[in-house]
Formats: sequence, structure tokens, C-alpha cells
Amino acid sequence: MLTMPVVSESSPSPDARTRLARAAVEAFATRGFHGTTTRDISTAAGMSPAALYVHHRSKEELLFELSRVGHLRVLEMVRESVAGSDDPVEQLGILVEDFVRDHAVVHTGARVINYELAALSEEHLAEIVAIRHEIDLVVRDVIDRGVAAGVFHTPDAHMTALAVLSLGIDVARWFRDEGRWTPDQVAVHYRLLALRMAGSVA
Amino acid sequence: MLTMPVVSESSPSPDARTRLARAAVEAFATRGFHGTTTRDISTAAGMSPAALYVHHRSKEELLFELSRVGHLRVLEMVRESVAGSDDPVEQLGILVEDFVRDHAVVHTGARVINYELAALSEEHLAEIVAIRHEIDLVVRDVIDRGVAAGVFHTPDAHMTALAVLSLGIDVARWFRDEGRWTPDQVAVHYRLLALRMAGSVA
Repeated sequence: MLTMPVVSESSPSPDARTRLARAAVEAFATRGFHGTTTRDISTAAGMSPAALYVHHRSKEELLFELSRVGHLRVLEMVRESVAGSDDPVEQLGILVEDFVRDHAVVHTGARVINYELAALSEEHLAEIVAIRHEIDLVVRDVIDRGVAAGVFHTPDAHMTALAVLSLGIDVARWFRDEGRWTPDQVAVHYRLLALRMAGSVA
Repeated sequence: MLTMPVVSESSPSPDARTRLARAAVEAFATRGFHGTTTRDISTAAGMSPAALYVHHRSKEELLFELSRVGHLRVLEMVRESVAGSDDPVEQLGILVEDFVRDHAVVHTGARVINYELAALSEEHLAEIVAIRHEIDLVVRDVIDRGVAAGVFHTPDAHMTALAVLSLGIDVARWFRDEGRWTPDQVAVHYRLLALRMAGSVA
């Protein structure tokens, strides 16, 4: 498929969509989905008040797209994290490092897609919940295999998997770019914390 | 001080304030602070559209009061959690159980006061940050004493303290009343997770 470079504001060029996406993330993070108007997003993207409707059917469609792309990216990432090894200890360690670093680096976007789920339509929410379930399964599988191999010990593998992801998601809430720790420093320490949570004997 | 029972809707009776507070928590949790009007809150509390202003100077003042009362309650709670013992392992265990159970039980209110901090005025935010700092200090002190006593082992006591609280706060995001686990079940499992995070040798 040939993609033409387009500069007109009203055309569905990648640039306009990207500008709208970035403006939406900032606005949703600052004022919440319900506190943001389509006009807020369009004008923050440097476009005319109704420009959002050229690219998205509604504000909810835009949130859904941000959420879908963001969740699929994380799913892809965690699948890659575990792909390089068969050792559950190594796999969980790399997965947590990647997941935590990512939530620290893109904390604003991560907050939006984790905290605004209730604003999605029932149909869209179901799609996002399905992707989240796939992410959960990657973590659960690693912990289950570690328990089976005797390198992890936990009275509830399912709740431990949830807690490991929960700890990583909450990084998006508290992490500050100007704070005392870098994303890498948090990622490395959280790798240790997660392995301990799983009862690693390594 | 003599408190008169008052039934008139426009008077600052505790009942009216409580109804407004409950309505505000629900509204802020559902539509966010910026997506909620004072009229939304007043009418959800069964009052006239401007009734909020009889009791609070603004929507922000109401959020601040919810936030202040909620944070002071948690500070009081964690101080009590550690008051019954001198043993850091026991203290951290009880503290995490109490903190996690609380965030599961009052998850809606906990989400509001943790996620809407940016909506507070600079002055009000500073007051809340100071209370949060006191809560952090309780956890940090327990972990520091455990490390000094040789019962905890962590390369970064400060980050571990933050992670323990972070794990508890995020319970408010994912916990569902109709979910598979009770608040007590989560609290008990998280006690184990937190002790492991701290490198408990107990």
C-alpha cells in the first residue's frame, strides 16, 4: 500500500492522528476522560475545534484506540520478555524489568489506559479486558512453571501473578521524571521484589 | 460542645455533609473530579443544585476534605498497626494486612483520594503530601529497624517501603466486591508478599 505524505490538517494523515493521540493522552491524564471535551483535544493538537471527528467517530473511540494500541504493545512486550529463555526465574525477572521500566517511562499514557477503563463502551471494554487477560496469562504461566519446577513457592500463584503486575502498573501512578530514581533503577529493584514475591529460591 | 440535631436540608448538619461526601466520592470515582459538577454532587445527595455551597466553599474544598479525612484515617490506622509490637516482622505484617484490607474495603474512596491529587490547590496538596509522608515514615521506620535487627534484607529500604505501600494502594484499583477474593484473603496473602519483599528471614 502506498502511503502519500499529506500535510492538510483535515486529512487522516499519520501526523494529525499522532498529534490528536498525544493531545488526548495529556488531556485525559490531566482532567480525566469525562473532564475533557473533543474541542480541548483538537485545539491542544493545534487543529480546529471539530478536527477530532475527521479522524475518530467520538472521544470514546479515540480513548479506545489509545487503549487498544497501548495494551497490544504491552502484550507484545511481555511475550518478547519471556521468549529468550526457558528458565522461569530468568523469564519473570526480565518480564518485570521490562514491564516496570515501560510503566515508568510512559507513565502518563499508562495511567490513562489503566484508569479510564470505565469510560469505554461495553463492547470496547470487552476487547481490552481480553488483551489484559492475555497479559495476565503470560505472567501466570511463568509462575506456574516455576512452581512446578520447584524454583518458585507461593500459596496462591494466581494472586501472586496479579500482585506482580499490580506493582508494575502502580509505578505509572507514582513515578516522576524528576524523581530520585531512573526507570532502570526501579526496574532492577522491582525484578528482585517480584522474584521474592514468587518465593524464588535462586 | 453541644451539637444540635438538625434536619433542615440547608443547614450544616452532619447528615447533609455525609450525604454530600458520599455523593462526591461516587461522582469523582465515576466521572473524575473535572468531569463532575457541584450540581451533580448536590442532586445525587438529594439536595438542591447549589446545596454544596452551603457546606463547602467549592468542589475543590470538598475533595480536599475527603482527602484530608481519608489520609488522616489511614495514618492513624498504620500507627495503630505497629503500636502493638516491637518486632519489625510482626509490625510490617500487621501493617500490610490492615492497609490492604482497608484499600479493598473502601476501594472507591481510596481511588478518589489517591488519583485526584492533581486536582487539589497547591496549598491543599502540600497538606496531603505531608500526611502521606508521615504514612511513608511509619513503613520506612519498620523496615529500617528490621534491617538493623538483621531480620530484613533489602538493597534499598526506601524503595522497598514505597513498593509495599504502592502494592497496597493499587488494590483499590483492581479489587471488586463481587470478585473471587475477600478483603481478608487479599490482606493475608499480601502480608506474606510484603515480608518477602523486605527479605524477611522469618
